[in-house]
Amino acid sequence: MAQKIKLGILGGGGDSLIGVLHRVASAMHDQYEIVGGVFNPVFEENIGFAEKLGIRTDRIYKDFDTFVEEETKRPEEERIQVVSVLTPNFLHFPMAKKLIENRFHVICEKPLTTTLDEAFVLESALEKSKTVFAVTYTYTGYPMVRQMREMIQSGVIGDIQKVDVQYYQGWINPVLQDKELRKTIWRLDPEKAGISCCVGDIGTHAFNMAEYLTGMEVETILADLNTRYDDNALDVDGTILIRFSKHVKGVIRSSQIATGEENGLAVKIYGTKGGFNWEQENPNVLYHLTDDKPVQVLKPGHAYNGAVSLDGTKLPPGHPEGIFDSMGNIYYGVAKAIRGLDYDTGEYPNINDGVRGMKFIEKCVESHKKGNVWLDL
Amino acid sequence: MAQKIKLGILGGGGDSLIGVLHRVASAMHDQYEIVGGVFNPVFEENIGFAEKLGIRTDRIYKDFDTFVEEETKRPEEERIQVVSVLTPNFLHFPMAKKLIENRFHVICEKPLTTTLDEAFVLESALEKSKTVFAVTYTYTGYPMVRQMREMIQSGVIGDIQKVDVQYYQGWINPVLQDKELRKTIWRLDPEKAGISCCVGDIGTHAFNMAEYLTGMEVETILADLNTRYDDNALDVDGTILIRFSKHVKGVIRSSQIATGEENGLAVKIYGTKGGFNWEQENPNVLYHLTDDKPVQVLKPGHAYNGAVSLDGTKLPPGHPEGIFDSMGNIYYGVAKAIRGLDYDTGEYPNINDGVRGMKFIEKCVESHKKGNVWLDL
Amino acid sequence: MAQKIKLGILGGGGDSLIGVLHRVASAMHDQYEIVGGVFNPVFEENIGFAEKLGIRTDRIYKDFDTFVEEETKRPEEERIQVVSVLTPNFLHFPMAKKLIENRFHVICEKPLTTTLDEAFVLESALEKSKTVFAVTYTYTGYPMVRQMREMIQSGVIGDIQKVDVQYYQGWINPVLQDKELRKTIWRLDPEKAGISCCVGDIGTHAFNMAEYLTGMEVETILADLNTRYDDNALDVDGTILIRFSKHVKGVIRSSQIATGEENGLAVKIYGTKGGFNWEQENPNVLYHLTDDKPVQVLKPGHAYNGAVSLDGTKLPPGHPEGIFDSMGNIYYGVAKAIRGLDYDTGEYPNINDGVRGMKFIEKCVESHKKGNVWLDL
Amino acid sequence: MAQKIKLGILGGGGDSLIGVLHRVASAMHDQYEIVGGVFNPVFEENIGFAEKLGIRTDRIYKDFDTFVEEETKRPEEERIQVVSVLTPNFLHFPMAKKLIENRFHVICEKPLTTTLDEAFVLESALEKSKTVFAVTYTYTGYPMVRQMREMIQSGVIGDIQKVDVQYYQGWINPVLQDKELRKTIWRLDPEKAGISCCVGDIGTHAFNMAEYLTGMEVETILADLNTRYDDNALDVDGTILIRFSKHVKGVIRSSQIATGEENGLAVKIYGTKGGFNWEQENPNVLYHLTDDKPVQVLKPGHAYNGAVSLDGTKLPPGHPEGIFDSMGNIYYGVAKAIRGLDYDTGEYPNINDGVRGMKFIEKCVESHKKGNVWLDL
Repeated sequence: MAQKIKLGILGGGGDSLIGVLHRVASAMHDQYEIVGGVFNPVFEENIGFAEKLGIRTDRIYKDFDTFVEEETKRPEEERIQVVSVLTPNFLHFPMAKKLIENRFHVICEKPLTTTLDEAFVLESALEKSKTVFAVTYTYTGYPMVRQMREMIQSGVIGDIQKVDVQYYQGWINPVLQDKELRKTIWRLDPEKAGISCCVGDIGTHAFNMAEYLTGMEVETILADLNTRYDDNALDVDGTILIRFSKHVKGVIRSSQIATGEENGLAVKIYGTKGGFNWEQENPNVLYHLTDDKPVQVLKPGHAYNGAVSLDGTKLPPGHPEGIFDSMGNIYYGVAKAIRGLDYDTGEYPNINDGVRGMKFIEKCVESHKKGNVWLDL
Repeated sequence: MAQKIKLGILGGGGDSLIGVLHRVASAMHDQYEIVGGVFNPVFEENIGFAEKLGIRTDRIYKDFDTFVEEETKRPEEERIQVVSVLTPNFLHFPMAKKLIENRFHVICEKPLTTTLDEAFVLESALEKSKTVFAVTYTYTGYPMVRQMREMIQSGVIGDIQKVDVQYYQGWINPVLQDKELRKTIWRLDPEKAGISCCVGDIGTHAFNMAEYLTGMEVETILADLNTRYDDNALDVDGTILIRFSKHVKGVIRSSQIATGEENGLAVKIYGTKGGFNWEQENPNVLYHLTDDKPVQVLKPGHAYNGAVSLDGTKLPPGHPEGIFDSMGNIYYGVAKAIRGLDYDTGEYPNINDGVRGMKFIEKCVESHKKGNVWLDL
Repeated sequence: MAQKIKLGILGGGGDSLIGVLHRVASAMHDQYEIVGGVFNPVFEENIGFAEKLGIRTDRIYKDFDTFVEEETKRPEEERIQVVSVLTPNFLHFPMAKKLIENRFHVICEKPLTTTLDEAFVLESALEKSKTVFAVTYTYTGYPMVRQMREMIQSGVIGDIQKVDVQYYQGWINPVLQDKELRKTIWRLDPEKAGISCCVGDIGTHAFNMAEYLTGMEVETILADLNTRYDDNALDVDGTILIRFSKHVKGVIRSSQIATGEENGLAVKIYGTKGGFNWEQENPNVLYHLTDDKPVQVLKPGHAYNGAVSLDGTKLPPGHPEGIFDSMGNIYYGVAKAIRGLDYDTGEYPNINDGVRGMKFIEKCVESHKKGNVWLDL
Repeated sequence: MAQKIKLGILGGGGDSLIGVLHRVASAMHDQYEIVGGVFNPVFEENIGFAEKLGIRTDRIYKDFDTFVEEETKRPEEERIQVVSVLTPNFLHFPMAKKLIENRFHVICEKPLTTTLDEAFVLESALEKSKTVFAVTYTYTGYPMVRQMREMIQSGVIGDIQKVDVQYYQGWINPVLQDKELRKTIWRLDPEKAGISCCVGDIGTHAFNMAEYLTGMEVETILADLNTRYDDNALDVDGTILIRFSKHVKGVIRSSQIATGEENGLAVKIYGTKGGFNWEQENPNVLYHLTDDKPVQVLKPGHAYNGAVSLDGTKLPPGHPEGIFDSMGNIYYGVAKAIRGLDYDTGEYPNINDGVRGMKFIEKCVESHKKGNVWLDL
């Protein structure tokens, strides 16, 4: 019988939403115990937060370097095995790099890094370390996303001929309308957010979904981004034409000025034999379309679903699971990998997904700046 | 008290679906009586069809030229006043031109013509004739489309900042997969269908909706079309980037290879204060989104709707009206124009909509051929 | 080739909503021409209305008796063949009776009569006359209702084991709250509306749907009605337990105080092999459920539908048809019967449906008054 | 800063679904740590399960009596504070009773007991002990259920005039069809399941929802149950007429033979000013209806929601939370009560909900057996 995996967490303290998501996710399949980490930069808050979580404070460290130094001193069987990196984006790279080099497994929030070059460095490091590395494209954990992927890859809808992935939010709209207010948002500040706001934050999720589901790589892209206002440096909206091959095309649509939309990630994929429609805000419903039969509505927990989907469903049909459960499934996949058990490649997004994501962001910005030209990916 | 308007019909005989749609639409508001026309090229079938419809056969003519010749001989008060042109696309132009020149009002199926130049000729002719001319972009007749237009134009969602119109169908998919079969389809034959299949047939509807609803003109477009197979000459799929102005962008998505989709015209429009979602297949539901209030679901027949929407709703809330009713509303608008009554410009699509549609088609094909470049519209 | 059927109309003049519905419905399948009738009790308005409709006024009569007298004098081939009775409820019986006795076919609005005894009289008269008689339970004309009926009757969901039909409206709520206002509503006045408001007006539709779809008769009922206020004589809400046989049960739920509901007729039927869900406000969608397969969503116009459903669909999939089209299908069925053509019994509701409806209303009121007891139907 | 609450668990070992639900729920708000319990009757499996969960085994006891004996010996500050009772139904009563008497707080799965008399005993015991006692009517934890309750109780929809709660499942259908198979199901065996199957298992949830949301007590009921087959002793379907007062009526509909339905708990509540519709399978959407305004769609996490709803939402709008989160909210409410913090009575179902549920079950069975008569509740 397996022991729990020792998990450390970097970031995610205080009122962090991402912190709750990862902690609950780690608990869902009885695979992990949180034994330490660095939740906050301020040591007292750090300790206080650990106490609030009911974690013993002897492995709560004052900073990241101490974390690595002290943990690596411990005997193998006591050492923290995997570290969740939930810090601000610019810290992902240095932390992940050092963790890999010290042979920790890593669960890294997206975006992987702030530049493509950094992403390549991590990729190389992992080739040496052979450790487990996950990038939390959270939405790939939903049972019906996994079911769609399995059905596509087993040929149910034939050859893919059209891909359309949307990610529409409206949250930036009220901020953006106010000239002064928009200057204060870190996501709109190139110093803090990097080269892209909308594509970097959500377009990349849509792109990941396109490749995750089809099992194909996008070959070339043409992006038209929108800053909405002249004095706003970063994109808040972008439509990206994509081609998987000469006659297999698609579109990635991302926006943060789709006023009133909440978290509208939506997938439409069509093949020679059928198609799929799925929406993140109603994640337990998968529509399977064909030329000549009634639309089929697949839901989680039924025997007609495949193994990966069923493995990610904890309760019988009709008991809605949500985004915590989706992240929980990713943690479960990582646990299998860490334990050396069999797992499907779809069970967690890996370094390649992270690198592809960074490439997508950089090429979109470049395509736009060059006047909306096609660029290879 | 008004007498019924005398309506003639060209085409739409036999099992024609478009014929049923126009006939029923013309009957819906007690405004028209069908008094003659040319339903079929074969005279006997033509007469037989008239008898089947219960129309007296003395004004069923053997061909279009005879129709015009004989009708124009009649005294003004007996003469057919308006003619519905439901013939194959390439006949729209010569028929419409001669009808205008002979001072008939015209209700013309879309696409208006087969070239932009022809469209301009009709536009000029109408400037002289001052007669009524409608192009049946059928979907503009839905009460909730009209409601959305009225709300947008009265500023309810503020300044438009993002427009996304989809028109996805799957009907061509099974035909297209078969190399021999696809050669036999007139819509895929440039000789018969003109320069575009998908954009010309449905992309143009999506484009019309974008301009109809926003009251703005698209300034420039960039199109990426897809023939799916090398030996297929015409587009069966196309994504078109659009710009209304520098920072007001959008996308038109049209496809006939969205396998399993039926008639998926769907609108998403976002402004600085709110947004709208609407889908043709569920036409009596309009979602109004804002930054901070619950989503509002508007439905036809309620007092909260505007005059044009209510005028196009015949029964109380909860009694679904459909596409026949939508076309009926367009016929009703045309009747008001013919009678010289007040009407809203949104009550029927006119020659300008027709010309814009032709320009859109031609520019899309040109943009694609030139390597997906921006072209002014 | 068939000539049009000569249709007369009683009632439905002025701003009558039911008048529009019947006129448009009669035009939809090119089967009828309206040649005369009595639209209004006031002769001048009657003539004016006919002129507005573009109907020649020589067969517009000053009253019902004159209508019958004059029409029966005409030679058989000129005579009005079928009469639509759209007058206030208490006139249905005397008019229908005289029409039957004079061998007119009749299309009668529901409720058939104001008492069960009257209904039996009509039933007897029809046994002699052998004429066509339809009662317009409008909702049975929807293609997906017909599809559901055909699938149930061909055994697709096995033996029926549970039936639940809802008809919830909210229209009476604002009226009912006001003590003075509710006295002025004819539907709440026993003198004018008869013994029931809610069950008589809408509960009876739900009941008809239950028997129409299952092909079975309800054996016994227990009703609990609600007047909401002590000084309100008639029911505005009622739940009725039904039994088709000892172990096949169900429930009819009807309400006019379901505040905010529009026209919420909804069907749930379950058998040993599957089930169906359908809602009138979204009539083109039929959900077919089973124990172990994905839910199937059937829509009109597809080849997988049966003949009666397809016959009632005028356009290809994805072009929503609505309630006018549903009534049009009933008129089409009546036309087939009048012409002596083959038709399915499901194509129009007949005298038996009308009689069953009256029996249901009377027994519900009796059950309630006796203290919610079981009564045979 | 608060320490974690010490939680013990009885039952829920092995592949138990209810065990996963409670464990994850207890972890969601960082309030509890699981320190011991009795997961399985077989001691070795019990220990093995604890090890699998990563719980120290020194407080895993061989049976319930030992659990109580040993824990009560411990000093107050070390002792398990609250115990989740997830054992088979007949064990709820003796365990809960002893736990209360020994001053443990209790979280008890529903149904509370197997008889109403037992429920009364627990109620009396709690009056003395003043400890916290929750019954896990799980569905009351959904943020939009809580929002609906708050809006109803603050008068948003006026005086309640109609309540309709449905709970339809189909899971028993395939089992029930087979004469031999149905004999093997414990839920259909009166020895094991008690006096009711359907009403006891799910009807009671619907009933609880009706009282929870309205804040009113059902005064009298009339039940019609169905065993479907003569040789099946227990109900698998039941419709129950309910009255809150003379003119405020409603209906509880529960079925396990609604073939193909998954977990169809659905609420419709109407008042003099508005109404609500909500469905458990799409729990993050709450429809608010009124006489004259567009339908409003409320979703979790928005500032327009009340405090209890927002407190039960961990992530921003558009990130679907599900049934684990719903149960998590109930655990959170219990934690507040244990800690002596302020909480809303809607934050967890208490002994009164449990007693009312038992009364409902017993009275439904009695009403049915007596020939569907009205009984006071």
